[in-house]
Amino acid sequence: MAVVEGGFKALDEKSLIEYIRTTPVLSSLLGNDPEDLTIKEVGDGNLNFVYIVTSPSGGSFVIKQAVPYIRCIGESWPMTKERAYYEALTLKEHGRLCPAHVPEVYHFDRPLSLIAMCYLKPPHIILRKGLIVGIEYPLLAEHLSEYMARTLFFTSLLYHSTTDHKREVAEYCGNVDLCRLTEQVVFSDPYKVSQYNHWTSPYLDDDAEAIREDDELKVEVAGLKSMFCERAQALIHGDLHTGSIMVTTESTQVIDPEFAFYGPMGFDIGALLGNLILAFFSQDGHAGNEIDRDAYKQWILKTIEDIWNFFYRKFISFWNEHKNGKGEAYLFDIYKKPELWLLVQKKYMKDLFHDSLGFGAAKMIRRIVGVAHVEDFESITDAKRRAYCEHRALEFAKLLLKERRRFNTIEEIIVAIKESP
Amino acid sequence: MAVVEGGFKALDEKSLIEYIRTTPVLSSLLGNDPEDLTIKEVGDGNLNFVYIVTSPSGGSFVIKQAVPYIRCIGESWPMTKERAYYEALTLKEHGRLCPAHVPEVYHFDRPLSLIAMCYLKPPHIILRKGLIVGIEYPLLAEHLSEYMARTLFFTSLLYHSTTDHKREVAEYCGNVDLCRLTEQVVFSDPYKVSQYNHWTSPYLDDDAEAIREDDELKVEVAGLKSMFCERAQALIHGDLHTGSIMVTTESTQVIDPEFAFYGPMGFDIGALLGNLILAFFSQDGHAGNEIDRDAYKQWILKTIEDIWNFFYRKFISFWNEHKNGKGEAYLFDIYKKPELWLLVQKKYMKDLFHDSLGFGAAKMIRRIVGVAHVEDFESITDAKRRAYCEHRALEFAKLLLKERRRFNTIEEIIVAIKESP
Repeated sequence: MAVVEGGFKALDEKSLIEYIRTTPVLSSLLGNDPEDLTIKEVGDGNLNFVYIVTSPSGGSFVIKQAVPYIRCIGESWPMTKERAYYEALTLKEHGRLCPAHVPEVYHFDRPLSLIAMCYLKPPHIILRKGLIVGIEYPLLAEHLSEYMARTLFFTSLLYHSTTDHKREVAEYCGNVDLCRLTEQVVFSDPYKVSQYNHWTSPYLDDDAEAIREDDELKVEVAGLKSMFCERAQALIHGDLHTGSIMVTTESTQVIDPEFAFYGPMGFDIGALLGNLILAFFSQDGHAGNEIDRDAYKQWILKTIEDIWNFFYRKFISFWNEHKNGKGEAYLFDIYKKPELWLLVQKKYMKDLFHDSLGFGAAKMIRRIVGVAHVEDFESITDAKRRAYCEHRALEFAKLLLKERRRFNTIEEIIVAIKESP
Repeated sequence: MAVVEGGFKALDEKSLIEYIRTTPVLSSLLGNDPEDLTIKEVGDGNLNFVYIVTSPSGGSFVIKQAVPYIRCIGESWPMTKERAYYEALTLKEHGRLCPAHVPEVYHFDRPLSLIAMCYLKPPHIILRKGLIVGIEYPLLAEHLSEYMARTLFFTSLLYHSTTDHKREVAEYCGNVDLCRLTEQVVFSDPYKVSQYNHWTSPYLDDDAEAIREDDELKVEVAGLKSMFCERAQALIHGDLHTGSIMVTTESTQVIDPEFAFYGPMGFDIGALLGNLILAFFSQDGHAGNEIDRDAYKQWILKTIEDIWNFFYRKFISFWNEHKNGKGEAYLFDIYKKPELWLLVQKKYMKDLFHDSLGFGAAKMIRRIVGVAHVEDFESITDAKRRAYCEHRALEFAKLLLKERRRFNTIEEIIVAIKESP
C-alpha cells in the first residue's frame, strides 16, 4: 500500500482483504467469510493489477485496479488511473446491451480506480492463447458478431437521438489520455523512428524501413487517424483484439474496455478481424512435423468470414427493427421507399466494411513493427521462422490498407489472404 | 419583463436601462450617464431580441438577448436560451483567433442569456442586403477567407493537441439543441413532406416533389448529415450565411455564432459559398430595364473563386507555419519528405473542398424548399420570375450535391455556374 495520492492506494493482497471485509457488497458475495479467502494476482496485461478472489463457500469475483502508470513499463510512463472509470462505465453499458458476452460489474470504487466483476472461471482462457494452441470455438463468430452488432448499433445515431448521443460523447471525451495512447502507438510510432518500436531484427529491418518510407501507406494512415480522432460514431470498446476476449467452447466474454470512447465503429471490427488475420499468418510458425495447422487455418478464415457476415445481418436487422425509433440519422419518412432503404443500408455497410479493413490493417502493422507485439508471433521461438510469418502478415496488411476500397465482400478478403504470397 | 423563470427575465427597453445602470462595465462604456440613453430594438433575425444602445457622449454597444423560444415563430417552438452561452463563448474564441472580423464581447450574463458587444455602426449593413442592392465589397474575399482560415485551422487537430480538442468538443456538445435544429431544417425537412416547408407555389411544386423523390440526392444528404452529427473537425460558426455577416466596403464582421459547435469545416465554407451562389442566381430577379446586373454577377463569381483560393492559401500557410506545433494529426516527423507533405495537404484540401460543395448545395436546397428562405429570392416580388431564379439555383445545387467529387477546382465550379441552364 505504498503509493498514496488523493485517496488512491495501490492495494496489495493484504490490504485487499481489509478492503473486501469493509465493503458489504463484496463480502456478501463471498458468504461474509473473508477470513479464508484465496487471492491470486494474475494481471498478465500491460496496464493493471488483477486479483482473483475466491472463498471456501464458492463465492468469487475479480478485482481489477488501475495504477497511475503503465504497469509493464513502470512509473516512468504515467497513465491516468481514471481509465478504470471509463472501463466500469463501458462494462455496464455494453453489459446492458449485450449481457451474454460482457462480465457483470459488482462494484466500482472511483477513488481507488477499482472494479469488482464476475470471475470468468476455468476453462475460460484468453482467446489469443486458444488460437495459438489451435482450439476451434464453434460459437465464436456467432457470439462476437452479436456483441459488436449490439454494442455498436445501440450506441450509434441509428438508435440514439442526437441529444442522447452528444451527452454520451461529451462524457467519454474525458478518456482522452487513452485515446492519445492509441493515436501514438497505432497511427504514429510505426511510421517513424520511435524509441519503443521493435521488430524481429535483423530479418525485418528492411520491412520496418519500408513502412516508414511508404508514402501511399502514410497518406492512408493519416486519413484513418483523423477518423479515429474526429468521428463519434458509436461507443467502441477501443481495444478489441483477441487478448481482450475470454472464451470456452460455449462462452465468449469481452473484457478490458478501458480504451472505450465514441469513435468509428470500424476500429472495433477492424481490431478483431486484423488480430484474427495475424493469428492466421502465425499458424505456420506453430505447425511442425507433429502438428498440421491446415484445417485450423481454414477454421480461422471461416470465422473471419462469419464474423463479418453475421455482424452485417444482425446490424441490419436491428436497424430495420428500430427504423421508426428515436434514431434520427436516417428518418424512415425520408428513406422508406424499399429500394432506397436497401440502397442507404448497403452504402452504410460498404463504408463501414472499408473503415474496418483500414483499421484492421493498421492494427496488424503496429503489432509487428510497433511497441506492443502479439503472443501469436512472439511465441514462435525460431526468429527466422517468426520473421517469415510476420513478413507475410505485414505485406498483406499493407495491401489491405492501400487497396481496401477495391474489396466488396469478406469472401474477397478471404481469397486475398489465401493467395497471399 | 413578463417572462420570469430561473433567474431569467426577458428585458424590455425600460428594464434594460435599469440593467445597464446597475452593471458597471456597461454604464462605464456609456460615460456613466445612463439617463439620456437611446435604445432601439432592431432584432430582424429569426431567434432573438437585439437592442442598440447609445449615449450622448458617443458610447455605444449592442445588447442581444436570447429568449427560450424561436422569436419568429413564438413560444410554440421552444428553443433553449443557453444558445447565448455558446454564442458568447464562440465570439470570444473566434474573436481571439481573428479579432479583425469578430465584434468584441464586453459582457455576458448567463442567467439572462444576454450578451453586450461592440455596436457595428453605420454604414455597416448585413451582407445579404448589400448583395441584393448590388454593392461590391472589394475586401470581402480577403476578409472572409482570413476569418475562416483562422477560426477553422486553429480549432482543428492540425493545431490543437488531442487533449485540448476533446475538452472543447465536450463543452460544445451542450449546444445540442441548436445542432438538432440544423439537422432538421437542413438535412431532413426538405426531403420529406413537412409542416413548415414552403416554396414558390405553384411554379415550384414539381421541383419540391422532385427533391423528395430523388434517391441519389437523398443518399448523398444522408452522408452529409452523418458527417455533420459525428465529425468534430473544428469549432465551426454553424450558420455562416450572408445574413450572419455585416459589412462596409472596408470592414467585414461575422456575427451570430449561436449554432457553433465542433463540426465539419466544410459546413461553414459551404454555407458561405452556397449563399453566394444563391445571391448569384437571384440577380436576374433584381435586374431590369434600368439595372444591368451582369457586371455584378461577375463580381459575385470572382468573390466565390477568391474566397476558396485565398482560404486554401492561408490555411496551408498556417499549417506550414505550425507544422512542428502541438497539433498531432500530421506529425512532421512522419510526413516531412517534401513531396509527401504536399501530397497529404493536397488530399486534405481536396476532401475539404468536396465537403464544402456538398454542404453548400444542401444549404441552397433548404433555402428554396425548406422552412427558412432568403431575402435574395423573397425580395423578387414577381412570383414567376422568382420561381425561375429559384429553379435554376435548385438545379445547380442538385448537380453539385450529386456530382461534387468530379470537380477539382473552384474555377470548374464557376464554369459550371456560368453554364447552368
